[in-house]
Amino acid sequence: MAEPSEITSLDGELRDGAHHMKVRVFYEDTDFSKAVYHASYLRFMERGRTNFLRLLGTDQRALFEDTEREAPSGFAFVVRSMQIDFLKPAFMDDILDVVTQPDQVRGASITLLQRCKRDNELIVEARVRVAFVSNGKAQRIPRALRLAMGAANH
Amino acid sequence: MAEPSEITSLDGELRDGAHHMKVRVFYEDTDFSKAVYHASYLRFMERGRTNFLRLLGTDQRALFEDTEREAPSGFAFVVRSMQIDFLKPAFMDDILDVVTQPDQVRGASITLLQRCKRDNELIVEARVRVAFVSNGKAQRIPRALRLAMGAANH
Amino acid sequence: MAEPSEITSLDGELRDGAHHMKVRVFYEDTDFSKAVYHASYLRFMERGRTNFLRLLGTDQRALFEDTEREAPSGFAFVVRSMQIDFLKPAFMDDILDVVTQPDQVRGASITLLQRCKRDNELIVEARVRVAFVSNGKAQRIPRALRLAMGAANH
Amino acid sequence: MAEPSEITSLDGELRDGAHHMKVRVFYEDTDFSKAVYHASYLRFMERGRTNFLRLLGTDQRALFEDTEREAPSGFAFVVRSMQIDFLKPAFMDDILDVVTQPDQVRGASITLLQRCKRDNELIVEARVRVAFVSNGKAQRIPRALRLAMGAANH
Repeated sequence: MAEPSEITSLDGELRDGAHHMKVRVFYEDTDFSKAVYHASYLRFMERGRTNFLRLLGTDQRALFEDTEREAPSGFAFVVRSMQIDFLKPAFMDDILDVVTQPDQVRGASITLLQRCKRDNELIVEARVRVAFVSNGKAQRIPRALRLAMGAANH
Repeated sequence: MAEPSEITSLDGELRDGAHHMKVRVFYEDTDFSKAVYHASYLRFMERGRTNFLRLLGTDQRALFEDTEREAPSGFAFVVRSMQIDFLKPAFMDDILDVVTQPDQVRGASITLLQRCKRDNELIVEARVRVAFVSNGKAQRIPRALRLAMGAANH
Repeated sequence: MAEPSEITSLDGELRDGAHHMKVRVFYEDTDFSKAVYHASYLRFMERGRTNFLRLLGTDQRALFEDTEREAPSGFAFVVRSMQIDFLKPAFMDDILDVVTQPDQVRGASITLLQRCKRDNELIVEARVRVAFVSNGKAQRIPRALRLAMGAANH
Repeated sequence: MAEPSEITSLDGELRDGAHHMKVRVFYEDTDFSKAVYHASYLRFMERGRTNFLRLLGTDQRALFEDTEREAPSGFAFVVRSMQIDFLKPAFMDDILDVVTQPDQVRGASITLLQRCKRDNELIVEARVRVAFVSNGKAQRIPRALRLAMGAANH
């Protein structure tokens, strides 16, 4: 209970082509089996995707501004499908690393590889296919965003 | 585990001036303490308020149509404050009765009395003050809605 | 808002080898995109799996008692992996049919096919591989449970 | 979207007798009204209480070790009642300050004052009465914990 509090960045950070974010497990994330409720990992990974886009916007500002010009009313990623493996349980008070990185970046969809780790143990691994939605409709992914993702990746 | 499944009404029912609704406790509602997570009761009570309004709309259709005329773009209750007592724990697989009834119906706000019970045991009791919001703004509560609430109450 | 309330069975029902359960979409299930939040479907499907097991216990009582003899301290399904497709959005006040059926029943794991439908529209479809956990450990699936699942299926 | 990421402490910090913690609003926290779902604030405040206890354990280690001696199987705060005011809406991407401080520390219960703020705007304010639970039962609050809370407060 008394481990010292880590200094971290509120929205995580981009490093080695991936977004890294620390998530503490709270009561709300667990269920009466004592472990983390399986759907809670989807919430953790959505926080990772949202922050990945947020930091990409700061880091690759010129490319992001091009994206915003193509989608002036704003845009978001919407999950189309996911394949998820629950490998080990996590527990109350655990600190998880949520790592998000582009896996396949195509014109119509992006597949992200997302992992929840506790130190070096892999807890959950998912491949998440997202579409780019703007103005309430799925759109072709703007070239600038594909470049920004690629730039993050190298 | 093997108790026979109760026949119930999907949205609960109005009876004796109150809305009654059965809620089954699932994994998602519990936490690692083994009991129901405290914020889950707010979700149960919100389902009760939503269904109370839904059934009032069927039961008191004429009064509700008057309300809809005063709020043509739709309306909702928004919680302004609540006083809530967590009296006993509830557990996985429990069936709770969520009972919602008007407590004070005034021009600017309505206070609802909401109870979660397991058979005759009171688990949670709350007084919930809601405002009537239409068109994105708090509005005076339409007379027809106040009458519909009063009619439900007698 | 004023559609009459359906009579339903609190825990859903077994029919044609599948478990069927109605779920109403509430505020808690949606997000600011206006549609149902993607992880909410995992909560709906977990309710389906829990109730499927519950009703199987009533319906196939003799086989279930054999299972309980093999797992005297209780048992549960734990999700090992899932493949999930989010095909269409669902919205506040929608009534969804959550349909759960055995897809592959093997010694070490069961794959369930789960679908969330709104009338005849398929909203979400998932294949969910679960392990049988008793006494805190994954166990071979008792023959009686495999038979009960098969019996439900025919 | 592109504001630079704040450096923060994962578990918040103790300052001026209060626990301060930043919480980012994600999709999961909102509902289709576009604002934060009312029960989400209870999740934010529970994170605040959990981290307040965690940091108190680090900061006032000697007093905490006395507490742990009196409750060797571990202990937790359990919410008995709360009075909560929802003053203004918060929205997706907002950063909230969750501030937790002892209000009344008595032998049988502690009342915490908890506030969610966005810059200088007060969004939610609550008084939360918690009991000290150890070994599955409510216990008198150990003198050392009362001292640790008092020490945090000055």
